[in-house]
Amino acid sequence: MFSASSERIRRDIEAMSAFTASPGQGMTRFSFSGEDRKTRDYIKDRMKEAGLTLFEDAAGSLFGRRAGSRADAPAIMIGSHFDSVKNGGCFDGPAGVVMGLEIARVLHENGIETEFPLEFAALVEEEGARFGGGLHGSRAMTGKVSREQLDSFKDRDGISVADAMKSFGLDPERIAEAVRPKGSLKAFIELHIEQGPILEAEGIEIGIVKTIVGITQQEVEILGRPDHAGTTPMDMRANALLAASEAALFLDGAAKEAGEGTVGTVGRMEVFPGGANIVPGRVFFTVDIRSVNNGKLEGVVSSLGLFLKEMEKKYGVTASMKEKIKVAPVEMSREIFDLFSTEAEKRGYSTKTMQSGAGHDAMIMAAVTDVGLIFVPSKGGRSHCPEEWTDYEQIRKGVDVILGTVLSLSGAKV
Amino acid sequence: MFSASSERIRRDIEAMSAFTASPGQGMTRFSFSGEDRKTRDYIKDRMKEAGLTLFEDAAGSLFGRRAGSRADAPAIMIGSHFDSVKNGGCFDGPAGVVMGLEIARVLHENGIETEFPLEFAALVEEEGARFGGGLHGSRAMTGKVSREQLDSFKDRDGISVADAMKSFGLDPERIAEAVRPKGSLKAFIELHIEQGPILEAEGIEIGIVKTIVGITQQEVEILGRPDHAGTTPMDMRANALLAASEAALFLDGAAKEAGEGTVGTVGRMEVFPGGANIVPGRVFFTVDIRSVNNGKLEGVVSSLGLFLKEMEKKYGVTASMKEKIKVAPVEMSREIFDLFSTEAEKRGYSTKTMQSGAGHDAMIMAAVTDVGLIFVPSKGGRSHCPEEWTDYEQIRKGVDVILGTVLSLSGAKV
Repeated sequence: MFSASSERIRRDIEAMSAFTASPGQGMTRFSFSGEDRKTRDYIKDRMKEAGLTLFEDAAGSLFGRRAGSRADAPAIMIGSHFDSVKNGGCFDGPAGVVMGLEIARVLHENGIETEFPLEFAALVEEEGARFGGGLHGSRAMTGKVSREQLDSFKDRDGISVADAMKSFGLDPERIAEAVRPKGSLKAFIELHIEQGPILEAEGIEIGIVKTIVGITQQEVEILGRPDHAGTTPMDMRANALLAASEAALFLDGAAKEAGEGTVGTVGRMEVFPGGANIVPGRVFFTVDIRSVNNGKLEGVVSSLGLFLKEMEKKYGVTASMKEKIKVAPVEMSREIFDLFSTEAEKRGYSTKTMQSGAGHDAMIMAAVTDVGLIFVPSKGGRSHCPEEWTDYEQIRKGVDVILGTVLSLSGAKV
Repeated sequence: MFSASSERIRRDIEAMSAFTASPGQGMTRFSFSGEDRKTRDYIKDRMKEAGLTLFEDAAGSLFGRRAGSRADAPAIMIGSHFDSVKNGGCFDGPAGVVMGLEIARVLHENGIETEFPLEFAALVEEEGARFGGGLHGSRAMTGKVSREQLDSFKDRDGISVADAMKSFGLDPERIAEAVRPKGSLKAFIELHIEQGPILEAEGIEIGIVKTIVGITQQEVEILGRPDHAGTTPMDMRANALLAASEAALFLDGAAKEAGEGTVGTVGRMEVFPGGANIVPGRVFFTVDIRSVNNGKLEGVVSSLGLFLKEMEKKYGVTASMKEKIKVAPVEMSREIFDLFSTEAEKRGYSTKTMQSGAGHDAMIMAAVTDVGLIFVPSKGGRSHCPEEWTDYEQIRKGVDVILGTVLSLSGAKV
């Protein structure tokens, strides 16, 4: 039985970990940044060593292609994203990219021929940490990114996706060319760290995902009036921060009340003008809601909208909520799920059927092809922080399960 | 009855308004800048025309002195500051300086002799917008500026007060010479725009300040845990923003409950790491509390401290509060307060006893002499912004009240 090398996995992860904009404070690798460039170059070198044919699509995602013996057969795509959140960890995304690189190496060094072509993927802007929204690489492949969106999504410095692409050497006018033709993909297979505490707590080696939760992200702006904090009586203020504070607390309560594992979070909040002696006149904040139950997802969003209307009256402010992303819960492919189970069993690895609370590119790809998603344990359940950790041997086990699955699914001659 | 000229007040304010570093974007007149120089030269010319004897003290404040008939009598100082915040308005400070100029002109053109000498003041760096701290001119006169501070306080370009003074032709080594000898002042009288909405809202012409509020500023840091917003169940989070939100709302309620015009504000709040899909792990925020009642000031701070302890338990976070500033309330002179009332009544102006929610040079001068402070209405309560406005006729009424008060207090022969 072929097997991956945890040593090579370690080497790749550690090398990519150096390309951070916040050294000593975790991984900050925003799309189309200098850190993106260095990481991309590293992945390209590894892909070339594994004999892959490189190309970048119009959205900026990177692919290494390996031909199959059947000329017109649809491709099996394998990989994950390589961008990060601000001050995140080194495994969220890269673990899946390195899974692809390692499988490509095993196939290459063993001269394995497959019937179906394979594409090893390193996708951009999954986190949305720079421009908001996220899942950008997979959305672009599935026709869900318009030319207009490249102008409207902007980073904190006001740079649009389109402008960032141009500076990076990409042509935003060609974004539609990233769309994969109907029937051109046979499957999309991803490995990801769990980003939660379950596998470690239960001593399970492999999480096989059955459902990815539905998710919506909204942006809220509250406009009040920036008065002098010393001279403006309490009853004559239009304090945007108080309305925002109530909304953050309301969202927490509404998610808990919805149940079934529904979660709701205000993760980013910015207060303007931000002087200690000025009443906040404007607050911007993000809203993130997830649930396996689409009705509950919708319910929490709409109750938050109604609550904001109440806050407008209570505080004399105006509030607007803008939807950045909304994706319904997604089921993984039953066939790939079963292959994962079989391959894990062959190797004697313990498995658990799971739901994914995080959105993943697999969720988007499910609209156009069969998808499979493997979780490996996260130490202490920590993620999106410098402490994020998965043992390389644990990643190796996940890679092996996917390796076996790919060999089977691709009609490999072994 | 002598009276000031709103036309001359208009002319002075408009002339000084031209000396801004941000034309079209409000008044930016930092101390020891080119705009300071031009404004200072303008004030000097007006002081000379009014027959005053000019001098600048070691801190850089400008004075025009008018001798009294009693050789050794203490002086009555009249005026305000002439620096501004960044992108501020044309009235905060200059209205009080022009009040002095106009009173000097009325005395001069009517040949009025006073028993006590008068000093018309244009003070520097009250706002602290360039070097931080603020109230610099009055602090220097009352012995609260050390030579060391001139080195340690720096502007955004790293230029110290001492270096800026040298470039401007002042000698920082002589700063102690700015201290006014004990007993050399009989009174300090200031006119300032209200910077709040009360006078306009109630249709009152003159605000007579009884107390300048005590103020405390605190910095709070709440530490939770930055977990993934999708994969961390609601009941396994340590969300720093929820604790901070509750604290902001608590402070609002506590200030309202304290009453007597007590105000409490969270003006600055920063959320870390600040990703839409990350549970906030750290929140920093400022607390600004002001009250005329020192017991209430202390009460609100300590109740907030206790509330933060509760939040630690409720959210599994840790909270720390650090005091940055604490100044007790300052009472204005009862004698001058009564003179203001009498003079306003004589002229038929409506008055309101007020507290000042903002710090002023009068607050500092109260440590060494009797002080009086008059407020005139601010349109819409707006201040520290380009929209800051007070009608010239409203300023004239305030000047007249102080004119009458000065004539009475100085033993004028009229």
